[in-house]
Amino acid sequence: MASDTYEKFIQHVRELNTARAIAELLDWDQETYMPPCAAEQRGQQMALISGLAHEKLTSDEMGNLVVQLDEAGAADDPTVATNVRELRREYDRAVKIPTTLVQEIAQTTSRARQTWLKARQEANFAHFAPQLARLLDLKRQVADLVGWDAERYDALIDEFEPQTRAAPVQELFDRLKAELVPLVAALQDAPRQPDTTLLERECPAGRQAAFNRRISAAMGFDFEAGRIDVSAHPFCISAGPLDVRITTRYNERYLPGALFGTMHETGHGLYEQGFDPQHTGTPMASSVSLGIHESQSRTWENLVGRSRPFWEHFFPALQAEFPTLADVALDDWYFAINVVRPSFIRVEADEVTYGLHIMLRFDLERQMVAGQLAVDDIPDAWNTRFREYLGITPPNDAEGCLQDIHWSMGIFGYFLTYQLGNLYAAQFFQAARRGLPDLDEQLRRGELAPLREWLRENIHVHGKRYRAHELVHEVTGAELSHKPYIDYLHAKYKPLYGV
Amino acid sequence: MASDTYEKFIQHVRELNTARAIAELLDWDQETYMPPCAAEQRGQQMALISGLAHEKLTSDEMGNLVVQLDEAGAADDPTVATNVRELRREYDRAVKIPTTLVQEIAQTTSRARQTWLKARQEANFAHFAPQLARLLDLKRQVADLVGWDAERYDALIDEFEPQTRAAPVQELFDRLKAELVPLVAALQDAPRQPDTTLLERECPAGRQAAFNRRISAAMGFDFEAGRIDVSAHPFCISAGPLDVRITTRYNERYLPGALFGTMHETGHGLYEQGFDPQHTGTPMASSVSLGIHESQSRTWENLVGRSRPFWEHFFPALQAEFPTLADVALDDWYFAINVVRPSFIRVEADEVTYGLHIMLRFDLERQMVAGQLAVDDIPDAWNTRFREYLGITPPNDAEGCLQDIHWSMGIFGYFLTYQLGNLYAAQFFQAARRGLPDLDEQLRRGELAPLREWLRENIHVHGKRYRAHELVHEVTGAELSHKPYIDYLHAKYKPLYGV
Repeated sequence: MASDTYEKFIQHVRELNTARAIAELLDWDQETYMPPCAAEQRGQQMALISGLAHEKLTSDEMGNLVVQLDEAGAADDPTVATNVRELRREYDRAVKIPTTLVQEIAQTTSRARQTWLKARQEANFAHFAPQLARLLDLKRQVADLVGWDAERYDALIDEFEPQTRAAPVQELFDRLKAELVPLVAALQDAPRQPDTTLLERECPAGRQAAFNRRISAAMGFDFEAGRIDVSAHPFCISAGPLDVRITTRYNERYLPGALFGTMHETGHGLYEQGFDPQHTGTPMASSVSLGIHESQSRTWENLVGRSRPFWEHFFPALQAEFPTLADVALDDWYFAINVVRPSFIRVEADEVTYGLHIMLRFDLERQMVAGQLAVDDIPDAWNTRFREYLGITPPNDAEGCLQDIHWSMGIFGYFLTYQLGNLYAAQFFQAARRGLPDLDEQLRRGELAPLREWLRENIHVHGKRYRAHELVHEVTGAELSHKPYIDYLHAKYKPLYGV
Repeated sequence: MASDTYEKFIQHVRELNTARAIAELLDWDQETYMPPCAAEQRGQQMALISGLAHEKLTSDEMGNLVVQLDEAGAADDPTVATNVRELRREYDRAVKIPTTLVQEIAQTTSRARQTWLKARQEANFAHFAPQLARLLDLKRQVADLVGWDAERYDALIDEFEPQTRAAPVQELFDRLKAELVPLVAALQDAPRQPDTTLLERECPAGRQAAFNRRISAAMGFDFEAGRIDVSAHPFCISAGPLDVRITTRYNERYLPGALFGTMHETGHGLYEQGFDPQHTGTPMASSVSLGIHESQSRTWENLVGRSRPFWEHFFPALQAEFPTLADVALDDWYFAINVVRPSFIRVEADEVTYGLHIMLRFDLERQMVAGQLAVDDIPDAWNTRFREYLGITPPNDAEGCLQDIHWSMGIFGYFLTYQLGNLYAAQFFQAARRGLPDLDEQLRRGELAPLREWLRENIHVHGKRYRAHELVHEVTGAELSHKPYIDYLHAKYKPLYGV
């Protein structure tokens, strides 16, 4: 393979990703500082820059370079091999879907989002149903154009979690469910329950921001190469490893919201900052998948942030910042932030019940895409499963099948990545414990750097070099399993609740 | 002229200006919130989006549309006529300059900016001289490619102040200088002088921000369609009339900096917000020239913001916000904010001496571009003129001919627009007084809306419909003259200083 062909290819890839970085920044601006009246123009700016990225990805020049490099066979250099493989994948996906279909999806989701907002407001699923059916139909067309082997849903999952298939995920989730449902029930019935009212004590937003910033800094977030701002919905965007921006929101009567939200987004941010800057704008400085991304946020939010060793160090500092917590015992705090309680809204769920919210959505989506579940039957299917998994029934569709924005955006095959993230995180963490035998002691001393470096060296710096299943094997020496996650939950929650 | 040709043309123009709006937003981000490590990538993002804008402007398609519409003759509809005329002008300018020259200028200015920074730090003009000579040479080439009639400098001025020529500006400035030099000397010699130490009393930044925001709001700045943030150097950017962003900086020991800086930038912002949003992304929603833009900022900063009627209303509120000013009399405040004192740095100059700083630069640039002043002779020429105009001699080149960034960016023909802005402002304000006979009374009551609406109706809404000289005639019924400005200065400063 001629190296000047590769050089030319990389230049094209970098331009493509520069356009995408601009789109990320416009998105960030829209959610943080953009004046409200600018919304319409922002749509035009996003359309222009997304169109440019699409042109750059699907241009004849890019096509020729990608095909030429790909057909020369896999390079010995893993960087070269990875970049060619990933662009081939992106290029093939993009050229298979005609622009007219892309535009129709964009127009339909634009309308569907409005309809969904209204339907949720009125808790009236029937209002949203026709547009959901239309979106499902359009995304089935996408799946067929992209191609699939076992089932159509696989092609949709592949967009978010490449090479992950529905059938093995189902097996994994089934095993998990068999353990989670009785665990949740046992914790519910435990006589010992946390006092969560202490989480509702007044904590000024300014002090929360200062404290959370210290935690992010301790985690290793580089504020010279990133920021934290405020937005209605927390998120993390990246315009490359040297420009990573996370957001949070403050509730002065609910400290854990911004606290664990910031640790979560910082986890995402550390992944993005952990790529090698020399690979900026190429797949070698991009995340493996949404699930692997989520594993990084969940590691810091839950495995570290909701652990006792972490708070042994940081709780005194928290109390110093928030005098309203001065009389709270460490154990009561630790118990309160680990409350397990079935609830209706996924984004508010604790780490034990969370998986059940996901499995429910995975079940339904799989059937919807396969045409085995009619759109009109979704509310019933949702509520029946909810009762089965969590023992409670949503009072209405707004707190049930209308709660998430994803379907209104034509996004199917995304939810499962959240729970895969939890499984990856637990299995990685087990490996981290083997690599860092003193991990708990380090956390107890507030030393977060060893874990962060372990994650960086074992996961972040590889960018897209390994696929998710390869990375899991590389890092943990085993296939992905539900065991590390279930073992973690049992080891933590049974003593806590005394069951 | 076929209306679908025009529709197609406008769509192209809007896309071009959407790309430019994105560049404006990236610029804003760079100066306000961008993490420092992101600078290099930001350069690549700016290059990509500027390149896209250049491609859209110089594309064959745009060329064909522009030429076709232009050659069909001026349209009756002033909107159509303006948009075609202005794009023809932009297109012609852009295609006349080859990409290689544009790139060479970009590379040279990139190096020159670093050299200038170092030269200024070391107060060593000789270090910067070779690159300044090179830039002058390159911009002379640009001038020759663009074309000119009377003198080469005209082609450079034309970029910033279209259809304005050096010779008539020189006449105007000469008349002005003949009045300003003795006025400055008289004010200097006046026995009555303001106590400016009261401007250095401690004023917390947070309170300054709150107070200045109230002033901006009173001026009519729409915070639903704009923002105020902090940056090292104050500026105003616009991504269309519904997204206008201004910045300021706070000095807790010098209240007037942010106060008048914010009024100045709000003046620019009101112009940008004053365009008709239906024309967004076209010349009909763009400013006439830099000079007209500056007239709007100077109107609010000086003609309103440094007037006694304005402070009759707002001074009690200022004192309420800043207790350190509680014992200050209105007249002492009014005198202090109107101090006239020759000084070396243009951006710190008062409104009487400011013009002399500009005329000096105009004289030098005109000779430099004509080849009548060798680059090596600039420091001497600067210092000689400075003494002549302002009666003082810069102690070194850092406080003399190295103080401004403009030349290091290859920008010649820009400075004069600042002083034209002052002249336009005074002449417009005279017209506004005729249109609003109660203007002083309105200001005394803190009613800023009538003046803002007058500016909007007479100047803003026209966008680029009129050229600067046409607008001046349209609004004031006369040619641009130095008289209104000199009359204003005499009427204000002679009684103030008792001369």
